[in-house]
Amino acid sequence: MQNIKVKIPATPAGSYDITVAGGLLPSVRARIKELFPGRNLFFVTDKNVVKAGHLKTLLGSGSADVYTIDPPGEISKMIETATAIVEAMEKCALGRDCCVVALGGGTVGDIAGFAAAIFKRGVPVVQVPTTTVSQADSAVGGKTGVDSTLSKNAYGAFWHPAAVFIDVETLQSLDSRQFNAGLVESVKHALIADGEYFDFLLENCDLLLKRKTDVLETLAIKNCSIKAAVVEDDPTEKNRRRTLNYGHTIGHAVESASGFELLHGESVAIGILGAFNIEQQLGLGDEKRISQVRTLFEKLGLPARIPAKIQKTEIIEMLKHDKKAIDGRPLFVLLESCGKVLCENGNWAVPVSPDILEKAIEGLY
Amino acid sequence: MQNIKVKIPATPAGSYDITVAGGLLPSVRARIKELFPGRNLFFVTDKNVVKAGHLKTLLGSGSADVYTIDPPGEISKMIETATAIVEAMEKCALGRDCCVVALGGGTVGDIAGFAAAIFKRGVPVVQVPTTTVSQADSAVGGKTGVDSTLSKNAYGAFWHPAAVFIDVETLQSLDSRQFNAGLVESVKHALIADGEYFDFLLENCDLLLKRKTDVLETLAIKNCSIKAAVVEDDPTEKNRRRTLNYGHTIGHAVESASGFELLHGESVAIGILGAFNIEQQLGLGDEKRISQVRTLFEKLGLPARIPAKIQKTEIIEMLKHDKKAIDGRPLFVLLESCGKVLCENGNWAVPVSPDILEKAIEGLY
Repeated sequence: MQNIKVKIPATPAGSYDITVAGGLLPSVRARIKELFPGRNLFFVTDKNVVKAGHLKTLLGSGSADVYTIDPPGEISKMIETATAIVEAMEKCALGRDCCVVALGGGTVGDIAGFAAAIFKRGVPVVQVPTTTVSQADSAVGGKTGVDSTLSKNAYGAFWHPAAVFIDVETLQSLDSRQFNAGLVESVKHALIADGEYFDFLLENCDLLLKRKTDVLETLAIKNCSIKAAVVEDDPTEKNRRRTLNYGHTIGHAVESASGFELLHGESVAIGILGAFNIEQQLGLGDEKRISQVRTLFEKLGLPARIPAKIQKTEIIEMLKHDKKAIDGRPLFVLLESCGKVLCENGNWAVPVSPDILEKAIEGLY
Repeated sequence: MQNIKVKIPATPAGSYDITVAGGLLPSVRARIKELFPGRNLFFVTDKNVVKAGHLKTLLGSGSADVYTIDPPGEISKMIETATAIVEAMEKCALGRDCCVVALGGGTVGDIAGFAAAIFKRGVPVVQVPTTTVSQADSAVGGKTGVDSTLSKNAYGAFWHPAAVFIDVETLQSLDSRQFNAGLVESVKHALIADGEYFDFLLENCDLLLKRKTDVLETLAIKNCSIKAAVVEDDPTEKNRRRTLNYGHTIGHAVESASGFELLHGESVAIGILGAFNIEQQLGLGDEKRISQVRTLFEKLGLPARIPAKIQKTEIIEMLKHDKKAIDGRPLFVLLESCGKVLCENGNWAVPVSPDILEKAIEGLY
């Protein structure tokens, strides 16, 4: 079992712990009770997680107040679901002295975290991620939110978790499409922050696909450490935290435009290749790295192209609505080299001219 | 013109200014543009404020993106209105680089502030309050939110304004019921923090009812200074800030139970008299102060009793759902003397036993 401390001075507690271990889940409820004595717990999960048996493992024999998101996935990630959760909490007569526990993937964590952020003007949330994408990324860092019909994570809050518990054994229940897609966030972390970690991923790809516990633990610790360092430096995404959006600007647009038929990780994989297309036009592209990433993505069975049924113009229009857009011009995180993000005049995300962007998008068809 | 600085270290700017003056409104838009160069402004107001001409005065001749809450008042203070506002902002293709301007009373400020808090995970909000209650209370201090069907301000966020502009001339457009009810927050500030201010209110009640600009300015400055001092000390209501809820625990329940036929200030007036009933049972009541407050409330034409059609049991049930309740027992702020809140073992709000509470409520019929 390993602990990673994330220091966020602006939060009431000032920091929170990420605990990583295989087989952690059965002890998590008792650990939360120990951390927050006297708090009433309210559990949020989804139908897939219940089916996989994780809720039962977490709850043990005790009863509990639970909201189960149904249907699972991005399609439920809308403000109405967050509203339904806070209304369910209100009906349980919960006050400020409660704590939300989010058990599941990225959408569960994002919605439950947002519900916790707005219930009675904010109650603690404990994240218990059960997917590759949430264990690597969304459960750590305090971004919560829901989608609008026009853009992803349009409404939300920065609401840092009070604690994170990562049991890599829960990943065994994922189907291979979901498991593999979530690994894209690990590749992203390596690309923006750690060349050696990138080499580790290349070398251990087969063991990873076999879901070996020790490799999965190494990944979780690496991912959380990289993300924690960035989040500590810039908790509310004023600048450096934007590096975590590498591949996400085009990725979010493709994900929305696909009507969420593409998974988040699959869309970000396309987005990373799109960022490569921008980098190449700007003379930043490193052929070796690009070819290695392409090979890695192929091994993971990830798409390399935007589905033909999505119009190029639709993607470009959506990019104008991106949260990070300034006057309709989206900002892009770009790599200088493997493990190093381009930083121009102190800015970690740079505006890209419409013609370069259009060409980069064209290259994804 | 006077400025009051409110220091909130946990916010990005660290502090914000409250500017108070009669006749300020026509210059407010230019002042906001100066404070936030380059930010797209999105205005939120309500139908009454538009009718009173304040929106026109604020906007001048320029065009603007505006959301007008209709119907005005507490009835629209629900999560669906906040959702409609953020959706309207999304349709205007606004990004994180926008700023919400809330022009109106307490409900406009609370809803617009909440919308700003959740849009793209948070954009600045400038509060331009136009009623006695919002100028004295709700526009300052960063509490935002909407009601559920079960309780007031059930969902919301602590989201401190980026600036507050108070033009006391806007109060001339209020009908006397609204104007008078809003003065209850001033009486509350005096009772919890400043005995001399209480004497000022007693002595100047007639001039106040005549809406003399200089008296209104004095009130605004006194109210904001008292509130700022408490909010600076405890921005997210861990303890001392609870003193600002004096009279609000019963007040909120009465307001909800009346179906918002009673105004916020009218309900808080009843709530203050309810707190007196608790204080008297605990041997804290000061007959002179109680009689002075009753006389003052009479002059302001405020109700002293809970409407007969509201059941006592309904009020008691709602108090269990209060945000500040712990295990169904509501906490009460109580006065030790005029200008001084009772503090027990470092706690500014104390649990009250069910029998004392029931007797206090009975005394309000």
